[in-house]
Amino acid sequence: MHEFDLIKKYFSKLSLGNKNSLNLNDDVFFDKKKKLVISVDTYVYKSHFFDFKKPNLVIKKILRSSISDLICKGVKPKYYFISGSGNKKTFTKSNLNKISFSLKQEQKKFGIYLSGGDTVFSNKLSFTIISVGFSKNIIFRNNAKINDDIYVSGNLGDSYAGLKILKKDISLNKYSNKYFVMKYYLPELHIDLAKKLLSFANTSIDISDGLFTDLDKLINRQKLSYKINLGDVPISKKLKAMILQKKLKKIEFISRGDDYQILFTASQEKARIIQRTFKSLGIKISKIGKICSINQKSQIIDEKGNKITIKNKGYLHKF
Amino acid sequence: MHEFDLIKKYFSKLSLGNKNSLNLNDDVFFDKKKKLVISVDTYVYKSHFFDFKKPNLVIKKILRSSISDLICKGVKPKYYFISGSGNKKTFTKSNLNKISFSLKQEQKKFGIYLSGGDTVFSNKLSFTIISVGFSKNIIFRNNAKINDDIYVSGNLGDSYAGLKILKKDISLNKYSNKYFVMKYYLPELHIDLAKKLLSFANTSIDISDGLFTDLDKLINRQKLSYKINLGDVPISKKLKAMILQKKLKKIEFISRGDDYQILFTASQEKARIIQRTFKSLGIKISKIGKICSINQKSQIIDEKGNKITIKNKGYLHKF
Repeated sequence: MHEFDLIKKYFSKLSLGNKNSLNLNDDVFFDKKKKLVISVDTYVYKSHFFDFKKPNLVIKKILRSSISDLICKGVKPKYYFISGSGNKKTFTKSNLNKISFSLKQEQKKFGIYLSGGDTVFSNKLSFTIISVGFSKNIIFRNNAKINDDIYVSGNLGDSYAGLKILKKDISLNKYSNKYFVMKYYLPELHIDLAKKLLSFANTSIDISDGLFTDLDKLINRQKLSYKINLGDVPISKKLKAMILQKKLKKIEFISRGDDYQILFTASQEKARIIQRTFKSLGIKISKIGKICSINQKSQIIDEKGNKITIKNKGYLHKF
Repeated sequence: MHEFDLIKKYFSKLSLGNKNSLNLNDDVFFDKKKKLVISVDTYVYKSHFFDFKKPNLVIKKILRSSISDLICKGVKPKYYFISGSGNKKTFTKSNLNKISFSLKQEQKKFGIYLSGGDTVFSNKLSFTIISVGFSKNIIFRNNAKINDDIYVSGNLGDSYAGLKILKKDISLNKYSNKYFVMKYYLPELHIDLAKKLLSFANTSIDISDGLFTDLDKLINRQKLSYKINLGDVPISKKLKAMILQKKLKKIEFISRGDDYQILFTASQEKARIIQRTFKSLGIKISKIGKICSINQKSQIIDEKGNKITIKNKGYLHKF
């Protein structure tokens, strides 16, 4: 059973008294009265990060994954907590120094502070990160409108290519290997975009599980469908070249997660302000499809105009 | 290395920019401007709870342990988050139903709500609980004054007796076994006391690691000592009888943790208001000693007036 099924089935009734919790059906908790936004995520060795050979990169990846939950909702993170479970082999002096140094760099980059946490001994390495921000409003899930344009920031798929290189499924030259592996470890976050998103996005999510899985999660309680033009889904030149060279499929790469780009919908009238905002911040933006009525099934259209179906929509935190 | 050493050594410098975090040297994080109080604790199978045969009791114990951090600081908890790591054997339908039912009971008892969390698959069972409350002020650690009286709520040691019964180190009659085991699983929390504590306590902590360990933590950054009269440390009639019968030592039981009673200091002038407050709430209160200058060593005086020394001050989350 996947994480959201578990949460929904057994725990959603426990939050019914609390309207702010969005019935546990969103990435963040929002207390509108207190203007408080909180995200909680646990990252387990082998499920959420491939190995711990580079603790300096692993800790950056999971911290970014956590604050990404806030950023994609239109909220700037302010501080964070870490609870780490490890043992003498994983929490060596050297590793703790590396983790501490990496966190210092991330704090400077994103303007956040460590506020507390816990460290416990366990032979299973894992981290829980709690990110906290303050905002009058947030962008909710399940708020798309018919005919909304669907947008995505940056490029998708580089992170999955990096994971395939780490797993030795693919090998390229040294320079390209490094490029993709760093995309896996250090997803690009658009923190300056956070507050601006509130002015044009109807609904939003960060792509952690894969484009189609996250699109489904974004509108899962709405009677809507989507139409995505595969040719418009943005990938890097490096990924395009690699896919051609290795005879792989683009859809395979964009359907896997860990990109942490922002997926959002907006009404057509917002098209100009969106283009202008992203240009002024130097962030790539792509319109990749439309929100449609429930009368038609969700569609993915390939470059030749043919409808395609995919079996494995995404990732759901399992290797 | 123990949890607080780890936190201090590697992570305290990361919070220097953030005055609110108390340099990670307290049980809670307090954002005075936002009046926000947060505690984060991770509980690992075999380290923080003995077994998982009774998930309904285990989840109550760890939730109470988490909100106890807020209550002892003078703050009423408002909501909480749970991140659970488990597998198919630990997160069975039956166990999840029991956990959910228990949480519902606790929510009603303490007026709190589940606000979110995460569930991940791991062969090592653990829970991270985040408790959130709002308060204009809190009671800090390291704020004791010379000549302060030292107080403790309720009784100590019943919980450790329960753990010894679970571990089969001790066996009593069925009724007594149950009494102590339930004290281990269901520590008594004084939620109605929370806000009142602010008006008389100079410094406070909940007893999770044992009386002397927590007393040391309470004043660890202050140039102070303490004098405790062992005869004044409150234990239940049942524990007194058991200790006599089995020829065990009182100090052994009060030095172990998991009681979650509130340990605090207050100036002598507050003695009357303290007695009156506890009486009106029907909570037992005991004056067990005094805060002294650093010119003398901390002392424990036994019932015969002799100074005693103890080797193993407490628990530090290891069996």
